[in-house]
Amino acid sequence: MGKYAIGIDYGTQSGRAVLVSLEDGREIADHVKEYTHGVMDDTLPNKEVKLGHEWALQHPQDYLEVVAETVPKVLEKSAIDPDDVVGIGIDFTACTMLPITAEGTPLCALEEFKDNPHSWIKLWKHHASQPHANKINEIAEKQGENFLQRYGGKLSSEWMLAKSLQILEEAPEIYSEADKFVEATDWVIMQLTGNLLRNSCTAGYKSQWHKQEGYPSQEFFKAVHPDFADLIETKLRGDVVPLGTSAGGLTEEMAEITGLPAGLTVAVGNVDAHASMPAVGVVDEGKMVMAMGTSICHLVLGKEEVQVEGMCGVVEDGIIPGFYGYEAGQSAVGDIFAWYVDRSVPKYIFDEAEEKGINVHTLLEEKASNLKPGESGLLALEWWNGNRSVLVDTQLTGMMLGYNLSTKPEEVYRALLEATAFGTRKIVDSFHNKGVAVNELYACGGLPQKNPLLMQIYADVTNRTIKVADSTQTPALGAAMFAALAAGKENGGYDDIVEAARNMGRVKDEIYQPIPENVKKYNEIYKEYDRLHEYFGRGENDVMKRLMKLR
Amino acid sequence: MGKYAIGIDYGTQSGRAVLVSLEDGREIADHVKEYTHGVMDDTLPNKEVKLGHEWALQHPQDYLEVVAETVPKVLEKSAIDPDDVVGIGIDFTACTMLPITAEGTPLCALEEFKDNPHSWIKLWKHHASQPHANKINEIAEKQGENFLQRYGGKLSSEWMLAKSLQILEEAPEIYSEADKFVEATDWVIMQLTGNLLRNSCTAGYKSQWHKQEGYPSQEFFKAVHPDFADLIETKLRGDVVPLGTSAGGLTEEMAEITGLPAGLTVAVGNVDAHASMPAVGVVDEGKMVMAMGTSICHLVLGKEEVQVEGMCGVVEDGIIPGFYGYEAGQSAVGDIFAWYVDRSVPKYIFDEAEEKGINVHTLLEEKASNLKPGESGLLALEWWNGNRSVLVDTQLTGMMLGYNLSTKPEEVYRALLEATAFGTRKIVDSFHNKGVAVNELYACGGLPQKNPLLMQIYADVTNRTIKVADSTQTPALGAAMFAALAAGKENGGYDDIVEAARNMGRVKDEIYQPIPENVKKYNEIYKEYDRLHEYFGRGENDVMKRLMKLR
Repeated sequence: MGKYAIGIDYGTQSGRAVLVSLEDGREIADHVKEYTHGVMDDTLPNKEVKLGHEWALQHPQDYLEVVAETVPKVLEKSAIDPDDVVGIGIDFTACTMLPITAEGTPLCALEEFKDNPHSWIKLWKHHASQPHANKINEIAEKQGENFLQRYGGKLSSEWMLAKSLQILEEAPEIYSEADKFVEATDWVIMQLTGNLLRNSCTAGYKSQWHKQEGYPSQEFFKAVHPDFADLIETKLRGDVVPLGTSAGGLTEEMAEITGLPAGLTVAVGNVDAHASMPAVGVVDEGKMVMAMGTSICHLVLGKEEVQVEGMCGVVEDGIIPGFYGYEAGQSAVGDIFAWYVDRSVPKYIFDEAEEKGINVHTLLEEKASNLKPGESGLLALEWWNGNRSVLVDTQLTGMMLGYNLSTKPEEVYRALLEATAFGTRKIVDSFHNKGVAVNELYACGGLPQKNPLLMQIYADVTNRTIKVADSTQTPALGAAMFAALAAGKENGGYDDIVEAARNMGRVKDEIYQPIPENVKKYNEIYKEYDRLHEYFGRGENDVMKRLMKLR
Repeated sequence: MGKYAIGIDYGTQSGRAVLVSLEDGREIADHVKEYTHGVMDDTLPNKEVKLGHEWALQHPQDYLEVVAETVPKVLEKSAIDPDDVVGIGIDFTACTMLPITAEGTPLCALEEFKDNPHSWIKLWKHHASQPHANKINEIAEKQGENFLQRYGGKLSSEWMLAKSLQILEEAPEIYSEADKFVEATDWVIMQLTGNLLRNSCTAGYKSQWHKQEGYPSQEFFKAVHPDFADLIETKLRGDVVPLGTSAGGLTEEMAEITGLPAGLTVAVGNVDAHASMPAVGVVDEGKMVMAMGTSICHLVLGKEEVQVEGMCGVVEDGIIPGFYGYEAGQSAVGDIFAWYVDRSVPKYIFDEAEEKGINVHTLLEEKASNLKPGESGLLALEWWNGNRSVLVDTQLTGMMLGYNLSTKPEEVYRALLEATAFGTRKIVDSFHNKGVAVNELYACGGLPQKNPLLMQIYADVTNRTIKVADSTQTPALGAAMFAALAAGKENGGYDDIVEAARNMGRVKDEIYQPIPENVKKYNEIYKEYDRLHEYFGRGENDVMKRLMKLR
């Protein structure tokens, strides 16, 4: 009789439960539930309350609906015995945070606060905290705060501190009323178990927690705002535990709702990209995992903590317990290709794609595949949404050169693919040269499945083999693996993430190998990329920023 | 009883006769004849003879068909008395050249040579002479030849010397058989009058003739190739006369064919862009004429010969007798906009244009008009076909920066319009700062009529008023004016081009005035353009050339 675990992946628009076999990681059943309220970026559910520019909120009820609908569905679809499920785990977008009462009730669920936008869940892509992030960064830099170096020298407006400060400064009544601020991933686990535990992944990457040093100091927070001084001791208080820790057993109420046994092991929360790492079998150094979608999140493990330029964060136990987890990223990848298809692909390409009954990306990839590296003479800087790693600069913009009157759409498309690969190479080199080895690459997410040319280009540009996730639901698979780890061997799970990864982590048989001739050509072109990267990216010519100011 | 002249404009694909009133330049009638053989860039009329890469030939018979069809047509349409026509003149593409016998027969008309591509007419855009131009430039530079400076330091593959050398090196039998090499514009005049006269415009701009110094020296030509030493004394021999000179009277045979009186004054040949200058009323210093189409030809007059960086040529009597005519140019302008519409305008813009029943350029211009200068954050270098003036470098390519995920097609389109305006400003500044005053601009050609936004941008970027030709057939009008000049006052024409221009030159009432607020903003953006122009254009970062080599 096999054993199973359930992973629930909470995305931006929907949640998806996947029931997997602990024997081999096979996905037995899955079910998706779109969020009833989606992303709220215009008004609150009370349509009279308008939201500001760059706001993005969510509704806590949507997360619970996902549990209530998807878990029974995967049990039903798989037709397994619920007693053979050893645990449940989740992964989430982050930092997606909310203010709660002592009992764990979201403030937005209280009548008196429901029309105050600050009582709601701030989604990861809520960017209205940028001024607050700026203030935090300015003071941290001025005071020479050590923690900054672990985050590429700059904290993001997407993270916990900026979002908390925005609440304090714009809605002090919400700030003072809140018992705690919590990551949504931890809040959902609290709803399943009754226990609030902060997981080391979001605490580390999004709230600047450090296993040895703890959080930034009271003095620092005080310098930011007098009432911010005790942020950690009040709003962010609570134990931080490693991924794969059991948060407790499923409550009676949740057992009823889900059809799972009460007391079932529930793992602490996790983050989508980070949960993917063991799901592709990576639980050791030397292997960089790229979660590739609209953007790329780069993850790699190390045995020591070193400073790598422009990384998004380094967190002990942040991805795999026992390792320092390093994260870096490119802020737009799939987004650029989508932009290109929306805004720049001519009618004749659309017509041809329609005629052939394929989508435009596929047709462009087909045409671009017939080109050789360097054949178009085009070269781009992929900064369509700024540069996250290694420059950490949102004020940079995209560039392309090499246009002539014969330049074709597939040439531009290929140059965009290549530019994102050059950006990844910058990141790979930054880690590798600092002693965080990157010997091979693993790709998961939506892009690698659909774009073999893109994968080949990445292999050629980085001169590294690339293995691609076999699952299309790697985050959920990873969440299920951590559930099995939380359950432990004696309950039919695993005691060791390495063993879990060996059995359950899955990559496709086909491996992308660098083609030596292409590697050589791309080395030449990368030199040119590098030079332009330095010229436009490091202040020699700040034309992009000056043009942005002129807007 | 009014007097008239006929101008025939020989373009790349067709010839057009225009019959104009000498009183006010009004166009009474016009008629177009497409060339029967068009541009031959694939095979000779004998389809068995394939042409090489970058070849472009024409058929002499096509030019005579234009005369035979269009002149009778304009006489018929206008219903005037042919005796009231005081003269006929033509303008032509250049350098468009052919080898002829002593009698003026094109070698391609001879049975023994008709299958040799080198016996045919090499059209202006025949670029297969590039290696020959390179050789000429290399030797001229090595020997420190003075004449180079009058042509921006480099002779073009499109010009007479390169085309002649190609014939010598690739078809010595044609070279030795040819009695002369002539510009097509001079050859057509020879067919009308029986007299071969070389006009000062093509001789100066395309064959490196100088009124005082003559042609480059025998020593120079000898250094290029021993058999090239006497090029000037043999193949290019013949008098060079100023524009507006009478080449003689119409022959009996041509009188019969055209319906014009025998002995009618025929002016010497001219070039399309150059003939436009008096047609917009410009016969003095300080006024730059821009012939704007696929590319831009910039023309301005001066009283002295000075060296201006990257100009295409300075020729005494080259445009208006009594002045030094300066020419500069941008190698792609309308071509870039056409490329953009062909290769980069998304389907939804096409659909919207179709729905509104307007063309795509018009829709894009409409949308781009709603943007303010600098609003998009985009900036381009317009080098889609290299840079003619001021850098004289065909190895440069186009660049755009400032892209983000919200960048819209109309923003890119506007950035392309602006980039061509910045390129023109570079040229304007180069002349003005060297003492060749450019106080206002005059625009003719296809683009200004259709693109009011483009004209406003040029006015704002250059901070100069722009007047636009009222005629859509300015070259033909100019050719007719030179015909009137050749005829002289006693025959009902003009003795003085100034008087002719005052009466016949025509611009629209509406003048584009710089808008101070835009001028200020564009000054800021031009600083950025200028810096990138220098960085990519003058060797600081030769990435464009290196990428071109990697192809």
